[in-house]
Amino acid sequence: MRELAQFGANAAGGMDRFVYTPAWQAARDQVGRWMAEAGLEVRSDAAGNLFGRLAGVSDRTILTGSHLDTVPNGGRLDGALGIIAGLVALDALREGRRPRKSLEVVATCEEEGSRFAANFWGARAIVGVAASDEPDKLMDADGITIRQAMADVGFAADDLPSAKRRDVDAFVELHIEQGPVLEQAHVAVGIVTAITGQYRAQATVDGRPDHAGTTPMASRSDALLAAARMVQAVNQAAFDFGPPAVATVGCVAVTPGAINVVPGQATFTLDVRHPDPAELTRLVNAVRGACELIAPVIWHELMYEPPQPLDQDLDRILGECASGLALRAMRLHSGAGHDAQIFARAFPTAMIFVPSQQGRSHSPLEFTATEDIVPGVRLLAAALQRLAY
Amino acid sequence: MRELAQFGANAAGGMDRFVYTPAWQAARDQVGRWMAEAGLEVRSDAAGNLFGRLAGVSDRTILTGSHLDTVPNGGRLDGALGIIAGLVALDALREGRRPRKSLEVVATCEEEGSRFAANFWGARAIVGVAASDEPDKLMDADGITIRQAMADVGFAADDLPSAKRRDVDAFVELHIEQGPVLEQAHVAVGIVTAITGQYRAQATVDGRPDHAGTTPMASRSDALLAAARMVQAVNQAAFDFGPPAVATVGCVAVTPGAINVVPGQATFTLDVRHPDPAELTRLVNAVRGACELIAPVIWHELMYEPPQPLDQDLDRILGECASGLALRAMRLHSGAGHDAQIFARAFPTAMIFVPSQQGRSHSPLEFTATEDIVPGVRLLAAALQRLAY
Repeated sequence: MRELAQFGANAAGGMDRFVYTPAWQAARDQVGRWMAEAGLEVRSDAAGNLFGRLAGVSDRTILTGSHLDTVPNGGRLDGALGIIAGLVALDALREGRRPRKSLEVVATCEEEGSRFAANFWGARAIVGVAASDEPDKLMDADGITIRQAMADVGFAADDLPSAKRRDVDAFVELHIEQGPVLEQAHVAVGIVTAITGQYRAQATVDGRPDHAGTTPMASRSDALLAAARMVQAVNQAAFDFGPPAVATVGCVAVTPGAINVVPGQATFTLDVRHPDPAELTRLVNAVRGACELIAPVIWHELMYEPPQPLDQDLDRILGECASGLALRAMRLHSGAGHDAQIFARAFPTAMIFVPSQQGRSHSPLEFTATEDIVPGVRLLAAALQRLAY
Repeated sequence: MRELAQFGANAAGGMDRFVYTPAWQAARDQVGRWMAEAGLEVRSDAAGNLFGRLAGVSDRTILTGSHLDTVPNGGRLDGALGIIAGLVALDALREGRRPRKSLEVVATCEEEGSRFAANFWGARAIVGVAASDEPDKLMDADGITIRQAMADVGFAADDLPSAKRRDVDAFVELHIEQGPVLEQAHVAVGIVTAITGQYRAQATVDGRPDHAGTTPMASRSDALLAAARMVQAVNQAAFDFGPPAVATVGCVAVTPGAINVVPGQATFTLDVRHPDPAELTRLVNAVRGACELIAPVIWHELMYEPPQPLDQDLDRILGECASGLALRAMRLHSGAGHDAQIFARAFPTAMIFVPSQQGRSHSPLEFTATEDIVPGVRLLAAALQRLAY
């Protein structure tokens, strides 16, 4: 984990490892070397997902792994831990007899959507649900399309359909919880029941740019003042809705953006989550409605991912494996999005959580002690053994 | 005015003419050609202020003019009008006999502080109050120092002291009001009694960056939520203080600035103005105090310009000239900062305002009809004649 964290490390102690960048490439090359050292067959698909395979008797596959990309100034564990845990589990399992089904660990790409508005990009390629117009439509902050970014590191967007997998019987992902629940409950491992639903949008609020010195307060139409009230309203609406509802404004910008000009336009992002489908709809309406009471808003919807229940058979198997290992486990939902929510549409999928210190994540302070990681890796290995052998 | 507006015009119909940039250089070259065509001796000082001189009998000078730089996406009149008005006035006056005192029109630079936090940069060089550490300390958004920016267009920061003028007996500037007072009062010209005082600062509010999906609302320390409350508090404090108090938040930024991360830090700018010195202090304290009630704030003070009364003798002369021209004039204070407030520290200074349509300024919609400009130019020419001949 420490070695992998060198790729994309920034001066603030955090990680900036964005898909199809040199830091991402270097990290991926390192993971490929480790896969090979663990005796796995290494293969990339057209999206850039990297697989390490322990071949089994049949043509069916049990898949584990997680994502290699990070959020801006993110932590070392989010994603990376699931890749390393999968490698460690397969390295242990391959020393026994040949498995009945093949075992594979995957490092997926652009789960976070930090460079492109392309969350779960790699997972969607594996499931075959990427839209054909996405390669040319999705652009990073520098105006580079994802097609171009892929081409720059040797991947052809036109080959994306070839990434689709039809041989996967189960996907099991280990991940940090990224929240405070397991730590507060003093529980070693979490078995995830569902992935929360997510709604994302960009809001635009119009005002009138005016001279900051000569325009009386009563004559202003200050777009930022309206947006500031909306930021409060978004937070208040989620508070009032009650747990597990969350709503976040993570970005804000104003134009013209000069110290001596009343803001003429303000934009902000909205991220709204709830694990129950009907409640998510009600929450989104409450949040947007609270903003619209303040001033007219133009909403540009960026994402709607409905809540995704995970597989009940795998849930039972993980519970039995945890009991077999004498591990305290609890069921909980994931407040974060994961590739697992995409995989769960196509094949049985499960997730294992290990605790996050103080629930911190998407931050350089993201941390889990090694002794709090090990139980999760043991549970993962036990489940993979039961599924593949 | 239309020709000058070609230099720095942007696609949005506004002006981006920032000091020491190619657009600014091109505009300045054009002004120099017009000065020469009007029979004036053209000269630049070390800061980049450009002068056109109609030589008089004595070694004393009467100065007029305004600034050539604009705010981002600003209008065509702010600054530029005072340069052209001065040119027109001198062009008319030079056709008579040689003046007793020299008459000069100046195009000053970086009055707005749009590229560097260096408001009144050119005027401060003329008065000799630029601090010796400013050339290396002041940086634009790309990290270029003002020393380097000057050098790139042929000016030596070390020569700045040579820009100081000791021969100026009066400065009279024509400018648009940039507010709604003259238009609402149906008055042709304003005679400015004082320039409002200005306080500018950058505020930094710290929170804790956390995962937007897994961090319960009650466990968050959202820097943007605190800053949003402060934006409201700033506006409310100025409202409650009452006219002519104004306070503006013109810029805001958050880090890490990702859609799925709770903001860990927010920064915003503050611009506070009042024409009375004691009231300005009281207003700044009220605004900052209202923010500090919400959360701890680190204030980085960028500017404190006390209110500046203008010269009473020039005020009387302008009043007499307006009467002589049968122009309706009213006294008013300026809610905007002007080079005049710097010049007024060193020599008698006056300002003439012409109406701004709907009070709009610092916007592409800034407009004054030609027939509403002419009375101001006539008043300027009359005053310059009286002062120099």
